[in-house]
Amino acid sequence: MDEYKIKVEIPVQWRDMDSAHHVNNVVYLKWIEAARIRYFMHLNNGKLQNEDKIGPILAWQECKYIRPVTFPDTVIVGIRRVETLEDKIITESKIYSKALDRVVAFSKQHTVSYDFKTRRKVPLPLNWLYNS
Amino acid sequence: MDEYKIKVEIPVQWRDMDSAHHVNNVVYLKWIEAARIRYFMHLNNGKLQNEDKIGPILAWQECKYIRPVTFPDTVIVGIRRVETLEDKIITESKIYSKALDRVVAFSKQHTVSYDFKTRRKVPLPLNWLYNS
Amino acid sequence: MDEYKIKVEIPVQWRDMDSAHHVNNVVYLKWIEAARIRYFMHLNNGKLQNEDKIGPILAWQECKYIRPVTFPDTVIVGIRRVETLEDKIITESKIYSKALDRVVAFSKQHTVSYDFKTRRKVPLPLNWLYNS
Amino acid sequence: MDEYKIKVEIPVQWRDMDSAHHVNNVVYLKWIEAARIRYFMHLNNGKLQNEDKIGPILAWQECKYIRPVTFPDTVIVGIRRVETLEDKIITESKIYSKALDRVVAFSKQHTVSYDFKTRRKVPLPLNWLYNS
Repeated sequence: MDEYKIKVEIPVQWRDMDSAHHVNNVVYLKWIEAARIRYFMHLNNGKLQNEDKIGPILAWQECKYIRPVTFPDTVIVGIRRVETLEDKIITESKIYSKALDRVVAFSKQHTVSYDFKTRRKVPLPLNWLYNS
Repeated sequence: MDEYKIKVEIPVQWRDMDSAHHVNNVVYLKWIEAARIRYFMHLNNGKLQNEDKIGPILAWQECKYIRPVTFPDTVIVGIRRVETLEDKIITESKIYSKALDRVVAFSKQHTVSYDFKTRRKVPLPLNWLYNS
Repeated sequence: MDEYKIKVEIPVQWRDMDSAHHVNNVVYLKWIEAARIRYFMHLNNGKLQNEDKIGPILAWQECKYIRPVTFPDTVIVGIRRVETLEDKIITESKIYSKALDRVVAFSKQHTVSYDFKTRRKVPLPLNWLYNS
Repeated sequence: MDEYKIKVEIPVQWRDMDSAHHVNNVVYLKWIEAARIRYFMHLNNGKLQNEDKIGPILAWQECKYIRPVTFPDTVIVGIRRVETLEDKIITESKIYSKALDRVVAFSKQHTVSYDFKTRRKVPLPLNWLYNS
């Protein structure tokens, strides 16, 4: 996971499992969100939105599930930018299970910048371009 | 939404919104899961797993977010099969907001059949092939 | 459930169950929150907070679990005020399962009024006293 | 928190906050559940249910909310037994916020022993009595 700038460590909880006795697919995306939030805070001096109320909004995501995770375990989620387009940032992330000692999911996300006052997409803020 | 065999109606709750005052991206995937579960129960006489403990497991999903949803609202999630491959079923789903009167998200899923006793992928059960 | 002014109907989802194959205890409190939110919106012309950013905040709650609920089912949650104290409103609520045709949980809540600008408890707003 | 035998440390996530910009009341109970699960696993050699499928089921809980928690933060949840009755164990727990350096919630729980095969309450297992 060394190639990931932002890494978040999250303890798996019993309730993360569903009635099929595995961690539910939706929980993987909660974990990825936790890393994504940290990444966009990192780009913007620790704040999710800037002083003009411009912040990230998720436009698309995908997740490939490799291995079921069970409680107890601890996962590490890494995220990094792979591309900057005119109106979006593409990030890629990986979930690693300590108990299984392997990557259990891959994900990609498209994030756009959104003005929470006017409720419209806006050009990417400069600090999303200057920082990485 | 008429082209969808399985449709699930879900009331949006206040807590579905996050601190950005929109329904959180992960909640859309919970809604889609609710429809997907219903679809696989429909293929198997109302049961999620068959008597040999073979049932669906999600291998991949993507979601395109079109419009933010807010509370109060009610969404309708439709799901249908678009392709049957040797080892997976590909489904497609749509989330429609009653308050906005438009589709707010599209999603696709790859579901494989999994033996919950041996913890391995197995060939698709016959009733996943015979039913649609 | 006729004695309840506010009633909210919620479809149980598969994921509401946990690894013990019952709806998880925490989900009951999400359902109760959904009804409580509706009750405080009802007191305040459909808005959760008034124009001064004063709104409800939960100070205490209890829940007695009577019967396990399983998917599929639909629950109805009723809530009503039982007492108005100087600095709080006490409400009582019940969860009824359609599939079981019985009450499956009782709950009580203490809600105080909170100024979200100054981040302090404030006296109960007048429309919480005038309306019921 | 030294008087607590079982302590669980949990990082607060952005999504734990709701639209009122505080951690949602229901999340506190998820945290408490995480500690309660650990406590009952501790009583039973690391397993939640014993080989006869007898395990804990929550019969009642209350929670007193002292202070709002916000992201980012890390909480520590402690739990301990306060009484053993004929048919239930009463536990008490506390949530401590590292960022606020204070206790933010108190909770009590009644847990009974349940036979997940016959779906009935059963006498407390011996290892719930011998261990503490």
